Amino acid sequence: MVSGKWLKLVKSLQIKKYRQLHQCFLVEGTKSVLELLDSHLVIEVLFGTDTFLRQHIRTRSDISFEYHPASDDELARMGSFQTNNSVLAVVQMPRQHPLRIEKGEYALALDGIQDPGNLGTILRIADWYGLKKIFCSEDTADLYNPKVISSSMGSFMRVSTWYGDLGVHFETMQNIPILGAFLEGENVHQYTFPDSGIIVTGNESKGIRTDLHAYISDRVHIPRYGGAESLNAGIATAIICDNLRRTKKV
Amino acid sequence: MVSGKWLKLVKSLQIKKYRQLHQCFLVEGTKSVLELLDSHLVIEVLFGTDTFLRQHIRTRSDISFEYHPASDDELARMGSFQTNNSVLAVVQMPRQHPLRIEKGEYALALDGIQDPGNLGTILRIADWYGLKKIFCSEDTADLYNPKVISSSMGSFMRVSTWYGDLGVHFETMQNIPILGAFLEGENVHQYTFPDSGIIVTGNESKGIRTDLHAYISDRVHIPRYGGAESLNAGIATAIICDNLRRTKKV
Repeated sequence: MVSGKWLKLVKSLQIKKYRQLHQCFLVEGTKSVLELLDSHLVIEVLFGTDTFLRQHIRTRSDISFEYHPASDDELARMGSFQTNNSVLAVVQMPRQHPLRIEKGEYALALDGIQDPGNLGTILRIADWYGLKKIFCSEDTADLYNPKVISSSMGSFMRVSTWYGDLGVHFETMQNIPILGAFLEGENVHQYTFPDSGIIVTGNESKGIRTDLHAYISDRVHIPRYGGAESLNAGIATAIICDNLRRTKKV
Repeated sequence: MVSGKWLKLVKSLQIKKYRQLHQCFLVEGTKSVLELLDSHLVIEVLFGTDTFLRQHIRTRSDISFEYHPASDDELARMGSFQTNNSVLAVVQMPRQHPLRIEKGEYALALDGIQDPGNLGTILRIADWYGLKKIFCSEDTADLYNPKVISSSMGSFMRVSTWYGDLGVHFETMQNIPILGAFLEGENVHQYTFPDSGIIVTGNESKGIRTDLHAYISDRVHIPRYGGAESLNAGIATAIICDNLRRTKKV
């Protein structure tokens, strides 16, 4: 049985201020936790069903963290999944490091992506297309929100993020092309991608904030062939990345 | 004040069996309803705030449906939006017609897309890329689910859908190329799209069901450059459509 102290602590990690207080976040579900065990991230404590612990923890010789058996009901009460969860890990937040763009490298910048599901999807897209760094404005959804972690399908372990003022950051990167989607931009099907760059994705309804427009050196647009007014932020990001990788491989 | 009879009827349309019983569905929000007023769809009844009715209904001479003022609170109780809704329309479901693929035309087929938000996003993608027809398996989310309608951002009015057995349907279309994403498929960046075709998108976790594999004449894959295991169904559909439109314009 999981003690009341643990139940309360783990449950609190669904809320950002407690994640910041404890500098920890939750990773839930067998698939993500198995990837986590082989990652560089540090697990504080793990709760799993007897079956999970027997199959995946007790058989390993490299486990140096605390773990406890938990019932399905306890896991459902502690975590954000409604049902069918067999494991939950409390993980230390890695310290934020400054991210630099190397020669030949591409990164994403997210300007106010609000929806945790969208952020998770964008992490997965970055990871699919081999982009390893994401700059996030301070008002972008929190990476450690359980919905972001779960919708990223493990990609949060392979992509580094940095949160801060994008304008200040772009100031320091004046020799790197900064790409943004604008209606009057160049057709992305014809655009020649520079050797390295940062692809900026704007807020779901407002797009890229005006303050940042001056930093966008390359305006592109995704050509439209029908009646929809817009594409969602994740879709637009994926299409720009796909067009990038046609010509600039990793 | 909206009568109890209306409140109950409208609220019931959030549930599929009542939508089928009444052959009606809900369209909510100013932007979608304004598009609806200029579409071919038939409105049964409309509920709006006084401001909405004054600005958008009473000024028009072509209104032939019943409409009633409703308070913010009544609109919140009747509809699926939590807050900030100023209008809600009850709309007749159009009759389902068989969809044919014309020469030079592309369509989508959805094989068990479960999530209403994904279906709405895919409608928007089809509409953006000028694909006007979507074939849906019977277990695909219901087009008339309020979440589908709202996440389609009006695209449900410009794209025709058909629900039925995809296998039976594909049987009747043997001269039309049927494309599906498979890991061992041809790289979509190099693939030459035929003149017309149907792009099949599989279920979010299981992909295209085995029974349908025999009908897929053209297997393509989206090249991956990083660590993510998969892309979500909407993203993959968008990328295939974008690659299609580079070479086959509408």
